[in-house]
Amino acid sequence: MLYMVEMIVQIPQSLDPELAAKIKLDEKEYSQKLQRQGQWRHLWRVVGEYANVSIFDASSNDELHTLLSGLPLFPYMQIKVTPLANHPSSIVQE
Amino acid sequence: MLYMVEMIVQIPQSLDPELAAKIKLDEKEYSQKLQRQGQWRHLWRVVGEYANVSIFDASSNDELHTLLSGLPLFPYMQIKVTPLANHPSSIVQE
Amino acid sequence: MLYMVEMIVQIPQSLDPELAAKIKLDEKEYSQKLQRQGQWRHLWRVVGEYANVSIFDASSNDELHTLLSGLPLFPYMQIKVTPLANHPSSIVQE
Amino acid sequence: MLYMVEMIVQIPQSLDPELAAKIKLDEKEYSQKLQRQGQWRHLWRVVGEYANVSIFDASSNDELHTLLSGLPLFPYMQIKVTPLANHPSSIVQE
Amino acid sequence: MLYMVEMIVQIPQSLDPELAAKIKLDEKEYSQKLQRQGQWRHLWRVVGEYANVSIFDASSNDELHTLLSGLPLFPYMQIKVTPLANHPSSIVQE
Amino acid sequence: MLYMVEMIVQIPQSLDPELAAKIKLDEKEYSQKLQRQGQWRHLWRVVGEYANVSIFDASSNDELHTLLSGLPLFPYMQIKVTPLANHPSSIVQE
Amino acid sequence: MLYMVEMIVQIPQSLDPELAAKIKLDEKEYSQKLQRQGQWRHLWRVVGEYANVSIFDASSNDELHTLLSGLPLFPYMQIKVTPLANHPSSIVQE
Amino acid sequence: MLYMVEMIVQIPQSLDPELAAKIKLDEKEYSQKLQRQGQWRHLWRVVGEYANVSIFDASSNDELHTLLSGLPLFPYMQIKVTPLANHPSSIVQE
Amino acid sequence: MLYMVEMIVQIPQSLDPELAAKIKLDEKEYSQKLQRQGQWRHLWRVVGEYANVSIFDASSNDELHTLLSGLPLFPYMQIKVTPLANHPSSIVQE
Amino acid sequence: MLYMVEMIVQIPQSLDPELAAKIKLDEKEYSQKLQRQGQWRHLWRVVGEYANVSIFDASSNDELHTLLSGLPLFPYMQIKVTPLANHPSSIVQE
Repeated sequence: MLYMVEMIVQIPQSLDPELAAKIKLDEKEYSQKLQRQGQWRHLWRVVGEYANVSIFDASSNDELHTLLSGLPLFPYMQIKVTPLANHPSSIVQE
Repeated sequence: MLYMVEMIVQIPQSLDPELAAKIKLDEKEYSQKLQRQGQWRHLWRVVGEYANVSIFDASSNDELHTLLSGLPLFPYMQIKVTPLANHPSSIVQE
Repeated sequence: MLYMVEMIVQIPQSLDPELAAKIKLDEKEYSQKLQRQGQWRHLWRVVGEYANVSIFDASSNDELHTLLSGLPLFPYMQIKVTPLANHPSSIVQE
Repeated sequence: MLYMVEMIVQIPQSLDPELAAKIKLDEKEYSQKLQRQGQWRHLWRVVGEYANVSIFDASSNDELHTLLSGLPLFPYMQIKVTPLANHPSSIVQE
Repeated sequence: MLYMVEMIVQIPQSLDPELAAKIKLDEKEYSQKLQRQGQWRHLWRVVGEYANVSIFDASSNDELHTLLSGLPLFPYMQIKVTPLANHPSSIVQE
Repeated sequence: MLYMVEMIVQIPQSLDPELAAKIKLDEKEYSQKLQRQGQWRHLWRVVGEYANVSIFDASSNDELHTLLSGLPLFPYMQIKVTPLANHPSSIVQE
Repeated sequence: MLYMVEMIVQIPQSLDPELAAKIKLDEKEYSQKLQRQGQWRHLWRVVGEYANVSIFDASSNDELHTLLSGLPLFPYMQIKVTPLANHPSSIVQE
Repeated sequence: MLYMVEMIVQIPQSLDPELAAKIKLDEKEYSQKLQRQGQWRHLWRVVGEYANVSIFDASSNDELHTLLSGLPLFPYMQIKVTPLANHPSSIVQE
Repeated sequence: MLYMVEMIVQIPQSLDPELAAKIKLDEKEYSQKLQRQGQWRHLWRVVGEYANVSIFDASSNDELHTLLSGLPLFPYMQIKVTPLANHPSSIVQE
Repeated sequence: MLYMVEMIVQIPQSLDPELAAKIKLDEKEYSQKLQRQGQWRHLWRVVGEYANVSIFDASSNDELHTLLSGLPLFPYMQIKVTPLANHPSSIVQE
């Protein structure tokens, strides 16, 4: 079951730079683990912004919230979730 | 080169129903041709709305505009285009 | 799996009054069928507006879209869907 | 008498972590007390956000304000209240 | 129990002028009846707009919705309701 | 001459709590003085928010600005003023 | 007493062109009468829009509403009123 | 003196197609005349929209308004004007 | 050539009070110099806000930007500029 | 391939003034290098704002993101990108 997830990252200037670097590293690792597991199906950068557009595949709303609230950058993100359905004109079922 | 394209369809009540049906049929055919050609990479329905989220692959901004303005439903759509770039945490290049 | 669904009804003045009355009757019947089946868990009127706030229970995004796009008033509605998850402070699992 | 209450939590980074933890614990306790008393009828997490959608049952606007302004997290919340009425198509009176 | 009610009137140009005049007359009569009954406590014109700001006194959300949806101009209005509570600095209880 | 005044209070976390308490006390006193003088005709709390809706009676725009900019909480408020006129359907002149 | 008044004109395509021309002529005459009387102090076109920014001088909110609702184009305008006060840095009292 | 001008075209469905075609042809001719005269410095299509971003060069606000209000499509456009100044980091004066 | 300029002042709480007082004094002096030179034609306070509406007269966009960016409060202001043109119904050319 | 890029600069008051001056100098140098290379085709100041409107020429979305995220002021900017296409009425291909 697919969801579009739009994430905007806003790290406060007051955050310790070393801690920030550590969180970003954790974020990358976490993100790639979910991608390899097939739960984070697509991840694109929005041109010119510290933001991304993603497609998630989760078995339920609860599972999706668990995945998103587990993001190391979650406290510094503004997230918008849009549930997606199969489109009758799509040539694939995804 | 990828773009997120969000389309909202607003067919006026005054449009002749037969003509509307014809346009929707043409739209489906046109959409599926672009999908088979790999230019319309993903097409999802936004749950609860007469709207879709799509990912297009075009070699230039001009090509993308040609594809979108050729949509049979183009005169009845509100379209928003977001250019996408490769994300450094993505495990694939797409 | 729960979703908040907010519906605003906008029936155009040009719609034939008899047809409008027929559609509203069908809407009521359809709504009550889904309520009895447990898929439309709550239905409240927004005070002062021709609008409602609803809680739907569906097994997937696709099922929810099927339920909503089947609403007789669907062509005259503006709908916004918010996926819900269990809240850690809730004393019930719903 | 029912109200939809939407709460977005925004705890400033500058708040002492121990104090923040204490406030969240108090919030949970306060919330569960109101749920057991039947005043906080439903509490759902908005997927991907530090926010909730709730349904409150209060005997008056004044009572509702007393309940909400008593929330331990009240100083850190953005709250929107929507009064609800019985819907003529609802199969229950709630 | 008090509510602020903001009403914006938008009568479509296509409405028959005689019918429009009749509805406005009914509206005035209905409004004055509710004012005399003490349910429509205040009614002010917003300067420069075909709109008003009102204070209603109703015993419940349901009663308020019944009053508002009974307005002869209801189908041509955009209405926003804000529930009000007693303010701790107010020198009167109203 | 009446005005609707909507005030949202946003006291920064960094303000000294004793000073904040002093300012709020001054605000209450100032507000009650204006109420007793008939210049602050109504004062209501917006349910669930640190905000109020007020009706002011001032002899001119200048006088109203003097009253509002004299509020002890003025530096911490977001204020919106709407000039009101007599409504032709109102049964009183106020 | 001064007010900034912003007017956006939206004449529907369906209005009879002769009638529209007549209304615009009346509007011009009405506007110039108020200007000569000193009530419509300034009138500027917003570049690129069928809109204006105006400064009105009225002795009360009621008088301003009477002036504005008397505009021949009033039914086809969207109007926003901002009450103005003397500025402490202004070298004139106006 | 340069201005960014953003134009969105909204031709109503009810406009006679032949008349619409004539207006578009006139628009093109008018636009190209201004381009050749150096007053319409740049003209770009916004990808996916019936809209453009333009750079105009005019000797005054009045001249710009004359140019824009002379557009054959002016009655069917939503226009936003942003005055531009020389940027201190620009390597050219334009 | 006239422009409407809307300025909202937001001085951060963290600014040294003496420095803030000095900047406001400089602002007043600067403002009055421009008024005496005829470049700052009108200056009004928006009732209830730390904001003003102004009319500037400048010979070019560049000159206007120089005047505005020279404001001592410029780093603490949110500014919106609207270019104005002569209105065909105005009885004066200004 | 052209893009309109709108940049708003928001340097926090807490940033060390010497560091800020250094970043602005780097920004200017970086900007002029891209202008000389033909990638930053136009750069204009928005009158009255610490903001600019720019036209970029990049061979791909990825290249544009690399250019923009390399801006020394990037962490302090809000950026909006609009992809542009050739306009059929333009007398040049740019």
